[in-house]
Amino acid sequence: MSDLILTTFDWVPEPPRGYVRDIRVRWALEEAGLPYRVETVPFRKRNAEHFVHQPFGQVPWLTDGDISIFESGAMLLHLGERSDALMPSDPRGRSEAKEWLFAALNSVEMASLPWSLLIFSGNTGDTPAWKLFDGFLHQHRLKHMEAVLAGRQWLAGTFSVADILMADVLRLVARFDGLAKYPACHDYVARATARPSFVKAHADQLAHFAAADAA
Amino acid sequence: MSDLILTTFDWVPEPPRGYVRDIRVRWALEEAGLPYRVETVPFRKRNAEHFVHQPFGQVPWLTDGDISIFESGAMLLHLGERSDALMPSDPRGRSEAKEWLFAALNSVEMASLPWSLLIFSGNTGDTPAWKLFDGFLHQHRLKHMEAVLAGRQWLAGTFSVADILMADVLRLVARFDGLAKYPACHDYVARATARPSFVKAHADQLAHFAAADAA
Repeated sequence: MSDLILTTFDWVPEPPRGYVRDIRVRWALEEAGLPYRVETVPFRKRNAEHFVHQPFGQVPWLTDGDISIFESGAMLLHLGERSDALMPSDPRGRSEAKEWLFAALNSVEMASLPWSLLIFSGNTGDTPAWKLFDGFLHQHRLKHMEAVLAGRQWLAGTFSVADILMADVLRLVARFDGLAKYPACHDYVARATARPSFVKAHADQLAHFAAADAA
Repeated sequence: MSDLILTTFDWVPEPPRGYVRDIRVRWALEEAGLPYRVETVPFRKRNAEHFVHQPFGQVPWLTDGDISIFESGAMLLHLGERSDALMPSDPRGRSEAKEWLFAALNSVEMASLPWSLLIFSGNTGDTPAWKLFDGFLHQHRLKHMEAVLAGRQWLAGTFSVADILMADVLRLVARFDGLAKYPACHDYVARATARPSFVKAHADQLAHFAAADAA
């Protein structure tokens, strides 16, 4: 019997489908070949038990035996420590995987999230805030990621949890044509999302929410 | 001889002093009682060697023997794995410290950074972007952190690297009066920053940049 349980929403509206963060955990679990099952919590009515597992009322969270973990970075770090398929085995490689795991979230997504929130809410164009966050993403982040990715296939030598997070973060930038000027970033996302484990994770998430529509 | 070297800028302008992220690493090193020395790179002219250690041209980074680590979260995780003073010893406590370490960065700072960038750049007031990011910080983050911190002294039972990051993130919110409506968050920051290790780290950072002015 599996002891890994991934909890996500029972349903979400159309726009975020394919991008709900449970995909990061699904992807890692598929790469590692770890058995798991998916459970759900209501999207529309978030109860106190939900907040015990995820204090901001979001998803996903992962339970491994009696340990419950929220934050996609923490879940992927936990899985990386369980599986050699997700993290290099030498100390230097492990350290690189961990620093890039943080960089994906706290340097790149830190810039891409406000950028995408402005797009989602229709607040782009000739405003100071749009110029501020568009410049932050392009000049301070993507320009440098392009230089990094021009020189390597994966962030920590071999494919790792860092690539799952970085590719997933950049994938949302690509959705809004943000990678047009960055061929190495674009190719990196294409390379990562061509992996069978991503293809399955993505299809599984879409099927999960489609089944909720049909129910 | 110490093998831990923390690299920061040689000088920064007045406004960020006391808030440059090397303070997170100084604080952790002081809590752990680990010997270290501080080295510098030019703030005004960032060379190729700088980008080898920190691909976005920022600071700090930490070297531990032949391993070089960027990202404050990755540095604190590394130090947490070196010292019992920075991370609980039981598996559940360690897991909690790690998830809250990510939450400080990727949930709370993810909302507080765009908020503070808008304040720094003078783009507050009656604009859609300000309402978006002010609401994101207050309704989706601080309201929930207030509930969490009302019930506990430290995030993972005992003081840990998670508290260093969360308190440092909330401290910048407090600087702009963002915690006025959150007494538990306010008290948490006061409790954390009253620790002798923070007081020393803060004084050391201020002295470091003041010495550069005098030079």
